[in-house]
Amino acid sequence: MKQIVIKKSVLESNDKIAAMNRTLFNSEHVFTINLLGSPGSGKTSILENIISKISCKYNLAVIEGDLYTAKDAARIARYNTNVVQVNTGGACHLDAPMIYKALPYINTTNLDFLVIENIGNLVCPASYDLGEDMKVVVMSVTEGNDKPLKYPSMFQRSHIVILNKTDMLSLTDFNKEEFYQDIYSLNETIKVFEVSCRDGSGLDQLIDCLMRAIKNKKDV
Amino acid sequence: MKQIVIKKSVLESNDKIAAMNRTLFNSEHVFTINLLGSPGSGKTSILENIISKISCKYNLAVIEGDLYTAKDAARIARYNTNVVQVNTGGACHLDAPMIYKALPYINTTNLDFLVIENIGNLVCPASYDLGEDMKVVVMSVTEGNDKPLKYPSMFQRSHIVILNKTDMLSLTDFNKEEFYQDIYSLNETIKVFEVSCRDGSGLDQLIDCLMRAIKNKKDV
Repeated sequence: MKQIVIKKSVLESNDKIAAMNRTLFNSEHVFTINLLGSPGSGKTSILENIISKISCKYNLAVIEGDLYTAKDAARIARYNTNVVQVNTGGACHLDAPMIYKALPYINTTNLDFLVIENIGNLVCPASYDLGEDMKVVVMSVTEGNDKPLKYPSMFQRSHIVILNKTDMLSLTDFNKEEFYQDIYSLNETIKVFEVSCRDGSGLDQLIDCLMRAIKNKKDV
Repeated sequence: MKQIVIKKSVLESNDKIAAMNRTLFNSEHVFTINLLGSPGSGKTSILENIISKISCKYNLAVIEGDLYTAKDAARIARYNTNVVQVNTGGACHLDAPMIYKALPYINTTNLDFLVIENIGNLVCPASYDLGEDMKVVVMSVTEGNDKPLKYPSMFQRSHIVILNKTDMLSLTDFNKEEFYQDIYSLNETIKVFEVSCRDGSGLDQLIDCLMRAIKNKKDV
């Protein structure tokens, strides 16, 4: 049987729906991030910190992407946050149509900030525009400093890297100098925030940055 | 444009080449593992430990899969091991044809043990049979104990789970009881080895298990 390459048309149709999502986010002034990273890098823990510090000031909603289970949505729901779980049933990334279908379950009117937590995967989700304002990638020091060069697309396409679990730095061989060298060689304008969800360090700077972006989008 | 679903035929043609690889491994009595896990779970560190303890007894070769770079192959080459780097150029998994093309660069005659280190990804590589005898998945305690239920295919299809970085256990919220409950609910016969590449604990048991499997394959 002939093998047909459909990647281009899949991405083309993804981009059309992503543009529709983006139009909606822009017209409603909703600042939207696509939260990416390996399994266990700490995306949900960071999201919990963001919610607890931002939800008193701004209206926030979350779309949780997972292959199976609603574990992360259940974690987020404890914060009385508007959350929708998207289960991909085995697919390794979220795509724009999945987000488009989830949006009716979120009231985007008066919404200020939407976080889309993607599938834990440092490869495939990088290729799919969801209509977001920013891609934010989380990596933990326990993963090793060689990851940016090994998974370059993710870091080339992201606006922010959150370097998580810095409280464990002394227990690892993570070389910060090499990490920064590699990161900036891939992406000159990327912002890096070093944080620890255990000791709380660095989270205020990250959250200030997000709050400025939310405010800017509202003022547009 | 009509969207054509080609997943079935891609996997079918993968399985044909995987069967050819398997025939070769069986006829040469080469015990072969497909080493899987998230980015940064510790696959290459575990492989370094395996090599240093097994290569004095058995002939060993490694196929290193990465999207880009030859960093891992360079690490492995330091042990004077027969190693081939396969770069997928962005693809998120190794497939059987990639292994088939790499095999001529390894002399399988008199080879006892082949380790294929897959792309760091807990989703896509689970679907692709490479012709291996065993899938071995590495996860680290720093990733959190919820990963098996969130990425079930990988754990359902693996013969061994290596739970790595146990020296960091006390710094995490990792719940071992839940982990074992979840793992065995997905896969009753899976073997679990708790190891730490930092303090060396658990590695001897893992390596004994692999050495028995290598010997069994030689004696077939």
